[in-house]
Amino acid sequence: MRVVIALGGNALLLRGEPLTPEAQDRNIRRAAIALAAVMKAGNDLIVTHGNGPQVGLLALQSGGDVAFPLDVLGAETEGMIGYLLQRELDNAFDGQATFATLLTQIEVDPSDPAFARPTKPIGPGYGKADAERLRRERGWTFARDGASFRRVVASPKPLRILERDVIALLVDHGATIICAGGGGIPVAHRPDGAMVGVEAVIDKDHASGLLAQSLGADMFVMLTDVDAVCTGWGTDDEAPIGSISAAQIGAMSFAEGSMGPKVTAACDFVEATGKMAGIGALEDAIAIMEGRSGTCIYR
Amino acid sequence: MRVVIALGGNALLLRGEPLTPEAQDRNIRRAAIALAAVMKAGNDLIVTHGNGPQVGLLALQSGGDVAFPLDVLGAETEGMIGYLLQRELDNAFDGQATFATLLTQIEVDPSDPAFARPTKPIGPGYGKADAERLRRERGWTFARDGASFRRVVASPKPLRILERDVIALLVDHGATIICAGGGGIPVAHRPDGAMVGVEAVIDKDHASGLLAQSLGADMFVMLTDVDAVCTGWGTDDEAPIGSISAAQIGAMSFAEGSMGPKVTAACDFVEATGKMAGIGALEDAIAIMEGRSGTCIYR
Repeated sequence: MRVVIALGGNALLLRGEPLTPEAQDRNIRRAAIALAAVMKAGNDLIVTHGNGPQVGLLALQSGGDVAFPLDVLGAETEGMIGYLLQRELDNAFDGQATFATLLTQIEVDPSDPAFARPTKPIGPGYGKADAERLRRERGWTFARDGASFRRVVASPKPLRILERDVIALLVDHGATIICAGGGGIPVAHRPDGAMVGVEAVIDKDHASGLLAQSLGADMFVMLTDVDAVCTGWGTDDEAPIGSISAAQIGAMSFAEGSMGPKVTAACDFVEATGKMAGIGALEDAIAIMEGRSGTCIYR
Repeated sequence: MRVVIALGGNALLLRGEPLTPEAQDRNIRRAAIALAAVMKAGNDLIVTHGNGPQVGLLALQSGGDVAFPLDVLGAETEGMIGYLLQRELDNAFDGQATFATLLTQIEVDPSDPAFARPTKPIGPGYGKADAERLRRERGWTFARDGASFRRVVASPKPLRILERDVIALLVDHGATIICAGGGGIPVAHRPDGAMVGVEAVIDKDHASGLLAQSLGADMFVMLTDVDAVCTGWGTDDEAPIGSISAAQIGAMSFAEGSMGPKVTAACDFVEATGKMAGIGALEDAIAIMEGRSGTCIYR
């Protein structure tokens, strides 16, 4: 099977764990081992990944005179995470499989209403005072996330993957591809026709779903740190959803910036293609694909 | 012709110009226009680029608890510069040519003597007091560069380009490739066999020469901000070298960390392949390839 697997930020960094080089290495190695098992079970993978903690950290470090915009920082995270993931996948195969990490630009509509309403959380959680200071000093927008505050940025809808044909060519030749990291680098046409970078972070689940559609994938799997999509998340009535139709789960509501985009991306893929989408824990990847674990969404 | 073109740091940022997002955009656009002209003259390009100013800046920003090692920072610069270069090349062709930017790992020997003797300058020039402070706080090594001091890091010899076959496949299918940015991401085998990142910056001219050899390129061109290799550089007797044999120019000596590695990389390529190498100014790329400008090195 040709499968697009999206690694959530929480599959690459434990929930609440600070981003350090060591933590990142450790978690990426764990993810690579899980992905290698899926490949060894006979699947062709196209792997995407989140970049929330990383792009947030780079934005914080990149201040003053050299504050790079989010498209450039997103490209940097495709380099950083893509390299580490490819290296550890290489190690899982002792260098005997072919991997390639491609920088990926994704076109968005410059008039997307998302630009007026930032929703995508990036970077660490801040206390109220720090959030207030950064709002003042940097003009950043913050939203409450549990007890802390996180920076939120615009997250426009992905429309077109510029490197789609190159990715397809490599997949057809048996390479395992890492691409569309962090939701892809957001670009848009200026009125004069030139493509320019855009100050945004595309949701990586929506970008991955678009990728899965445009590559004719047989399945689209989103891996995170929870076992399944749940009803009543965080309440006494919390219950995992196993197998469910897109129409049914699409009528429920889930947290924006967390399970919400995953469910929407899954439904979009399922409705457009008639194929299945899965959501669940990194370590359960094969079981999710076989319908034995996680949440399986069908038409 | 299949041509590997290496863009020097000085072709991407004017000599002495501070690295800002605007300066970087402007210079990369200029480089993309020059490269597009070479493509339109009927050549298949594989483009590499330096990352000295960028990797130095990221190292400076990435301090304290989250000081990422040079292999990771190098991967980030492949993302940043590769994206901007590809986007502007796309713009030069109105999206009608196929480009791909590939993260590139290059294997080095962990016992390379270069690790004991840092020579590769990265980042900006510092005054004596700042250099002394950074040496104390970060353990960095500095070397004098004219009136200022620049950080120098280990620059081991590139041995093997891990993504060589993927690059060749894409080139064979007509794509223009950006790869081996910043000399490639340096990796090495640990005694247990695992590939790990290495705290170094490979010289991008040597990496590009290895790439040109391993792809069977017809020519290897290094573009910078000077018109040609000169004898007596900076003296009253300064004179450009036009056409010269590898044996002749290889017997002369040039500044380490500047024209030195370019001349050595050119000679290595010429002696290994019998093909020609050129060194000269970005804007003269076509003239250099036709032997009408720059320094042309033959067997």
